[in-house]
Amino acid sequence: MQQESAFITMPKGFQAAGIHCGLKKTNDPDLALVYSDCPAVTAGVYTRNLVKGHSLLRTINIIQSNRTCRGILINSGSANACIGPQGDLDAEAVAAEAAAVLGLKAEEILTCSTGVIGKRMNVSGMIDGIKTFPSVMSSSEESSHLAMQAIMTTDTVPKESSAIIEMDGKTVVISGMAKGSGMIHPDLATMIGVFTTDADIEADVLDKLLRNAIAKTFNRVSVDGDTSVCDSVIIMANKMSGVPIIEGTKEYELFASALYQISEDISRIIAADGEGATKLIEVQVSGAATEEDALLIVRSICRSPLCKTAIFGEDANVGRILTAAGYSGAAFDPGQVDISIGELLVCKDGLVLPFDEIAAKELLSQKEILISVRLSAGDFADRMWTCDFSYDYVKINGSYRS
Amino acid sequence: MQQESAFITMPKGFQAAGIHCGLKKTNDPDLALVYSDCPAVTAGVYTRNLVKGHSLLRTINIIQSNRTCRGILINSGSANACIGPQGDLDAEAVAAEAAAVLGLKAEEILTCSTGVIGKRMNVSGMIDGIKTFPSVMSSSEESSHLAMQAIMTTDTVPKESSAIIEMDGKTVVISGMAKGSGMIHPDLATMIGVFTTDADIEADVLDKLLRNAIAKTFNRVSVDGDTSVCDSVIIMANKMSGVPIIEGTKEYELFASALYQISEDISRIIAADGEGATKLIEVQVSGAATEEDALLIVRSICRSPLCKTAIFGEDANVGRILTAAGYSGAAFDPGQVDISIGELLVCKDGLVLPFDEIAAKELLSQKEILISVRLSAGDFADRMWTCDFSYDYVKINGSYRS
Repeated sequence: MQQESAFITMPKGFQAAGIHCGLKKTNDPDLALVYSDCPAVTAGVYTRNLVKGHSLLRTINIIQSNRTCRGILINSGSANACIGPQGDLDAEAVAAEAAAVLGLKAEEILTCSTGVIGKRMNVSGMIDGIKTFPSVMSSSEESSHLAMQAIMTTDTVPKESSAIIEMDGKTVVISGMAKGSGMIHPDLATMIGVFTTDADIEADVLDKLLRNAIAKTFNRVSVDGDTSVCDSVIIMANKMSGVPIIEGTKEYELFASALYQISEDISRIIAADGEGATKLIEVQVSGAATEEDALLIVRSICRSPLCKTAIFGEDANVGRILTAAGYSGAAFDPGQVDISIGELLVCKDGLVLPFDEIAAKELLSQKEILISVRLSAGDFADRMWTCDFSYDYVKINGSYRS
Repeated sequence: MQQESAFITMPKGFQAAGIHCGLKKTNDPDLALVYSDCPAVTAGVYTRNLVKGHSLLRTINIIQSNRTCRGILINSGSANACIGPQGDLDAEAVAAEAAAVLGLKAEEILTCSTGVIGKRMNVSGMIDGIKTFPSVMSSSEESSHLAMQAIMTTDTVPKESSAIIEMDGKTVVISGMAKGSGMIHPDLATMIGVFTTDADIEADVLDKLLRNAIAKTFNRVSVDGDTSVCDSVIIMANKMSGVPIIEGTKEYELFASALYQISEDISRIIAADGEGATKLIEVQVSGAATEEDALLIVRSICRSPLCKTAIFGEDANVGRILTAAGYSGAAFDPGQVDISIGELLVCKDGLVLPFDEIAAKELLSQKEILISVRLSAGDFADRMWTCDFSYDYVKINGSYRS
């Protein structure tokens, strides 16, 4: 589904900007705006962490009340979390400034922040930056990529995907961009993602479609088992295509499918770009007794530092995969487990086979690795993406604040 | 409670041996025997992993049926797990050989194995080694330390503790030794531990005291969140002191307290010697709403790779501690959380304070680090030990089998 070019302003009626206003120590962009030329129906999913950032709490309140917005202001460098009442004031101040320069009300601008927790945002720097938005924002691909760069923290690659859906001569476009490299684990809408579309869609329907898409995509990525206080995925639908998306129609199915595919594209990029990652790992389980058991097993394997370091070392330590399944909490007969790495069967009926070590090492040296676990407990399946666990994860996270 | 000298044969009537029989690639000892001169009342706690090693399954069955044994045979190099029926036969074969050379029945010898999962034990090498036991086993401190060395895998230090309890002129001794450095997380009796005592104690009482001691010691250690298929702690009580330990007596309290203290000593050594560890971290929580919430929070922080890499990097990233508490599943008001590192208050009422970074770095450069989290949700407290997460963890586990 990824187009050759993918950028957040590809749907009609969206503009973007990414500028440097002094939040990052480098001269890279650190403040992004995604803007709709007209009011956009808005839905979001958010972290389930008990601790939530001030910028995010503000956004949640606005979406719950208004279900519409004109733009999203996203900064890196500070998560604007655990700051106390000042954090609420800071989020409101930068939103008010953006609204002022764009001729809007403050509540039409949503706020997202990512970066160090417990560090105040540089509000005056941000306000100076915001004043430049009217002169730099545009619907160009270049502006979109600058906005993408502005939300990156330890990300090493941009994460963007677009879909162009042709519907009887009319066209609907959906685009997404996201940041996220560490502190990523499901049960939350992990990382920050922004989706735009020019579809004409009601808030309830948009909300449902977003939740459906996220459930098995963004919520199936684990980098390290940690879950952040700022995670959110927000979608804006501004109707500019003139194409209504109504439940029960062919258009609805096409739109849902495209949204899901974009979510999957971006989720895979996020897993592959996990902090320090050298490989994308997809873990599949089938034959589980319940839906919950299937999820428990893929989560347990994707979270295991022992499985992830073994794959980094390209060591086919099958026992660790079986062990992680065993302590996942799922019910199954350990004597009826088959495990494959790619196409290579490495465990049959719970016995680690004398597999070809050279072939296994070759498989594990690929950039994408598939681990399949087949049980005989029932008919439920699931899959999750993660990455390997390398020296660089330790390096990146041993000195993140400095 | 740690004596200046601590060794597994310090209680009366125990002998030990540690020999090299070819299971490790080095010439280090790899096969241990702990032997009682007379039948010893025996209790154990075991991994809750659904997948269990063949040697361990045999031991669980024997302890459940007989509640007594004469010795424990422990090998490193292979976990004897996920081998199929051959694994059961192998465990029985080495136990039978040990029993034969010691003039016992096979069921009087328990078996424990640790090492690579899915790799058969070198049974013929072990049998050759076992034949030498009668000539090398002894009650000496040296034999004890050889047995300790024989059960080590990635451990860098031996883990031994002894307590001498004086009771009105009579003396009871308890000793413990354990291996364990990776694949360690609670909800299981983690790692392999062997305790000996010359106390005269009934099986039910011994079982209860062992469970009580383990619950807040061995079950409060997390190295990496992974839990192995061979974990067990087994205690043998051979009555040779002639001192009965009966519930409700002063002797009982002294014995329980000493057993707990030895368990704590060894648990702390295990955490400090976690794979790649440079620091021992104790995480305390107080003011939790329930006992379960208190445990959820210490577990969540001790398991967080982001907290553990930050401490490795001596970076006082307080936001990560608060974040890990926030996603633990425990209920509390994030606006009423205080966090200290050592004596330094770094977070007050959910706000990260502008603490003295140099003082924080100094605290984090110590070998032992205390993190205290105080909530205002109730009266429950807990604490857990872990270690930092270093490059060496990745190095050790990227190539464990090779």
